[in-house]
Amino acid sequence: MSSKKTPITRLCRSDVDKITVRGHDLATELMGVRTFTETFALLVMGRLPTPQQTRLVDAVLIALMEHGLTPQAIATRMIALCEPEAIQAAIAAGLLGVGSRFGGAMAATAVLLTEVVQAGEKGQEAAKDIVARARAQKKPLPGFGHPQHKPDDPRAVRLFQIAREDGLAGAYVSAIHVLSAEVDASFGKHLTINTTGAIAAVLGDLGIPDDIMRGFAVVSRSAGLVGHLCEEKEQQVAAYLYGMAESEIQYIE
Amino acid sequence: MSSKKTPITRLCRSDVDKITVRGHDLATELMGVRTFTETFALLVMGRLPTPQQTRLVDAVLIALMEHGLTPQAIATRMIALCEPEAIQAAIAAGLLGVGSRFGGAMAATAVLLTEVVQAGEKGQEAAKDIVARARAQKKPLPGFGHPQHKPDDPRAVRLFQIAREDGLAGAYVSAIHVLSAEVDASFGKHLTINTTGAIAAVLGDLGIPDDIMRGFAVVSRSAGLVGHLCEEKEQQVAAYLYGMAESEIQYIE
Amino acid sequence: MSSKKTPITRLCRSDVDKITVRGHDLATELMGVRTFTETFALLVMGRLPTPQQTRLVDAVLIALMEHGLTPQAIATRMIALCEPEAIQAAIAAGLLGVGSRFGGAMAATAVLLTEVVQAGEKGQEAAKDIVARARAQKKPLPGFGHPQHKPDDPRAVRLFQIAREDGLAGAYVSAIHVLSAEVDASFGKHLTINTTGAIAAVLGDLGIPDDIMRGFAVVSRSAGLVGHLCEEKEQQVAAYLYGMAESEIQYIE
Amino acid sequence: MSSKKTPITRLCRSDVDKITVRGHDLATELMGVRTFTETFALLVMGRLPTPQQTRLVDAVLIALMEHGLTPQAIATRMIALCEPEAIQAAIAAGLLGVGSRFGGAMAATAVLLTEVVQAGEKGQEAAKDIVARARAQKKPLPGFGHPQHKPDDPRAVRLFQIAREDGLAGAYVSAIHVLSAEVDASFGKHLTINTTGAIAAVLGDLGIPDDIMRGFAVVSRSAGLVGHLCEEKEQQVAAYLYGMAESEIQYIE
Repeated sequence: MSSKKTPITRLCRSDVDKITVRGHDLATELMGVRTFTETFALLVMGRLPTPQQTRLVDAVLIALMEHGLTPQAIATRMIALCEPEAIQAAIAAGLLGVGSRFGGAMAATAVLLTEVVQAGEKGQEAAKDIVARARAQKKPLPGFGHPQHKPDDPRAVRLFQIAREDGLAGAYVSAIHVLSAEVDASFGKHLTINTTGAIAAVLGDLGIPDDIMRGFAVVSRSAGLVGHLCEEKEQQVAAYLYGMAESEIQYIE
Repeated sequence: MSSKKTPITRLCRSDVDKITVRGHDLATELMGVRTFTETFALLVMGRLPTPQQTRLVDAVLIALMEHGLTPQAIATRMIALCEPEAIQAAIAAGLLGVGSRFGGAMAATAVLLTEVVQAGEKGQEAAKDIVARARAQKKPLPGFGHPQHKPDDPRAVRLFQIAREDGLAGAYVSAIHVLSAEVDASFGKHLTINTTGAIAAVLGDLGIPDDIMRGFAVVSRSAGLVGHLCEEKEQQVAAYLYGMAESEIQYIE
Repeated sequence: MSSKKTPITRLCRSDVDKITVRGHDLATELMGVRTFTETFALLVMGRLPTPQQTRLVDAVLIALMEHGLTPQAIATRMIALCEPEAIQAAIAAGLLGVGSRFGGAMAATAVLLTEVVQAGEKGQEAAKDIVARARAQKKPLPGFGHPQHKPDDPRAVRLFQIAREDGLAGAYVSAIHVLSAEVDASFGKHLTINTTGAIAAVLGDLGIPDDIMRGFAVVSRSAGLVGHLCEEKEQQVAAYLYGMAESEIQYIE
Repeated sequence: MSSKKTPITRLCRSDVDKITVRGHDLATELMGVRTFTETFALLVMGRLPTPQQTRLVDAVLIALMEHGLTPQAIATRMIALCEPEAIQAAIAAGLLGVGSRFGGAMAATAVLLTEVVQAGEKGQEAAKDIVARARAQKKPLPGFGHPQHKPDDPRAVRLFQIAREDGLAGAYVSAIHVLSAEVDASFGKHLTINTTGAIAAVLGDLGIPDDIMRGFAVVSRSAGLVGHLCEEKEQQVAAYLYGMAESEIQYIE
């Protein structure tokens, strides 16, 4: 596990009067000039994004920011009830829920899309094979299905629209539609392409590595959870649900 | 601790074909139209920010995003070494370090600035009193001092400049300069107004509650930590430092 | 913040065929011979505890292990709903709530008890002063008061009893009773010495540093949260409360 | 995801003067009478363990408690450097590393052992198949191999010995040895049965569900991390490694 060679870093250098982030002067070239999203993309992609790429990354980050009283939001509010001052802990608690079930499935979807993309002309066969494997293992297909948003998820529809408008829909966006057609054919009905599925596709076309995609969900959701902490100061959801638990859930030996 | 009255939420409503975030249609009015920062401000402030406010919030978020191989970044890289797939856990681990010492001091600073602001015409006396109290308790003054950036922190300078350019510098920005003058007078030398100090001032003038300010640092740093995870895939800092620990730090009974 | 001198470690050394923990062979002298609690105390205190000390530490760890559907337990169950496989994340989320309000107040209590202990013969005056300060600042006194367990907390009573039986009640246990008398005199009624208060006292007499005491609560609660995860597999509290939140808490613009 | 039926809890009931944990009076029947490990096992298994079971669970918890300056311990120390007071956050950060690579592999191992156990008389064939699958996918076999402890891990050897001495070695302990033989045959050399592998086997024979086993590692490691926080107060490993990172790792554009 140890590494002999001294690593380097390309992220940041601090001098007494200047901070450099990926080759840009932080105070003069980024602050006041660039947006959060452009600077985030600079860190992740290694270069400033185009305006079109920025619009798409913004849309991805907005899509996952807020989805109501999710289990993650409830966890954040519960920890804030325990420790109201250390809000970083409350946010971190909620972020731990950005996993395979709520908002973190883009990584697993991207692996499948890569399989379709790499199959090239045989993409449809690859898609068929993916669906068959999932059904044989009786596992859900990441990126497909939503308990509420049917037949389509408005966020997914919008992401594809933005990607196409801005000329950023490529092999991954094609791949998810190929896969979607095979999913529908196999199940005999239309399954929603959900938001995490659409995000996997558009981030794939932006060249974001599969195993980094979930980071976009974390950034996005961290912003949403700050919103929940603001609201919790006036609307005490944690205390309400805690009271519910105490009054409704009985102890039985 | 329990609450009888049923709380409400003003954050988000999901319908089958539409998601509404604080009164705005998420897919059509926010995605593709607004930036991450505008949407984050909408959640926290309850209304869309002006372009000037957006620029200032962007600058705040960019200021704290990346500061090199901080203990937080090292913690994130260490947890990624243990669990490379669940990057939300690695990011959460690092965010737990957004505390009083590295990037989270804006909350404590804001409390002091509020004291100066509320003293109105007697602000200078309040500032004198704050400095005297801190010195009597031999405690550092949050918002002041930096081990490296002297005499001034370029990020703080830039934040004040942006706030002034955009007409957003108000009572809190004045207050930190009043406090700074008293700090310098008391110590007989100039202490840096650091980035978290400047952020406390400009966010205070935007009306952000003291105990929510640290949330801006968390959002900002979460983006920076994704950058570290990207880099860690090629530059194995965690393995290097772990190897250092194993080879350099001896066990003694 | 950086340190020039190379640190050492006294905790553990791994050789190919032997692991040494604080001077003891892990496989032959600890495993199968010592208990969890003895080994934990060895790490924290630097030597194996006496049987009496072990019994007291066991009682401390048992006292805080389980207290029903606390906000911490709810947070853990919520994150398990999001990410059922990575149970370390669910447990960590709950542990983040071991703060000043639910189970982590022993650190703040211990600081007060140290003040009384160090005052020696003037302990009563120090206690009077502590109570006066807290009342002037309208702050609750850590270690005192409980919403449910009145007039006494059975866990606190039991901890004092065990400490006395085993000859381990010293200056800190005396101090909390001196402080309790002043609290009662000032408030004109008896306030419960709560479990965290009692723990601060008995751990203080064991020589545990103030700022490490909360670690006992974390170890204890981690065991309790594993119990909640076991139960959650059959009794889906998280899904129930999440459903409650969705059905009861309305969105209002 | 929502659940209509009101769940129940069997863990804890609090009355004004009495707390009941799984049918036992916490203050009188558990505190001062039982050990931490017995009470933990009570929560997880639903009944008090036998003395033999207790000894084995103690050995499991001790086996993983401390293994030196692991990435988890470094993460904990780094977060303590950022936020020295909220040690629950520092511990939680380290625990997030109890994943598939460092100390959390028992869950994945247990799934394989269950496959061998359920194959009954055809256990050897099942084991052969497991090894063949892992090799075809070029994946490591969880529970086998250790970078340092060769040919055998002294903790694993000891766990098997204790389980046998106490009559607790059953189908799972047999299964891991069947699997080990197939591993060695396939690789043409002996691979270490590592500690997490041995733990999966002995906990399997105790009837602990696969997906709860990692909880034992979390409890165990939480105790070890408290030891690291104690030591960090005197031996500043975090500051040392942070200084190393700053001085050794260069920024390159």
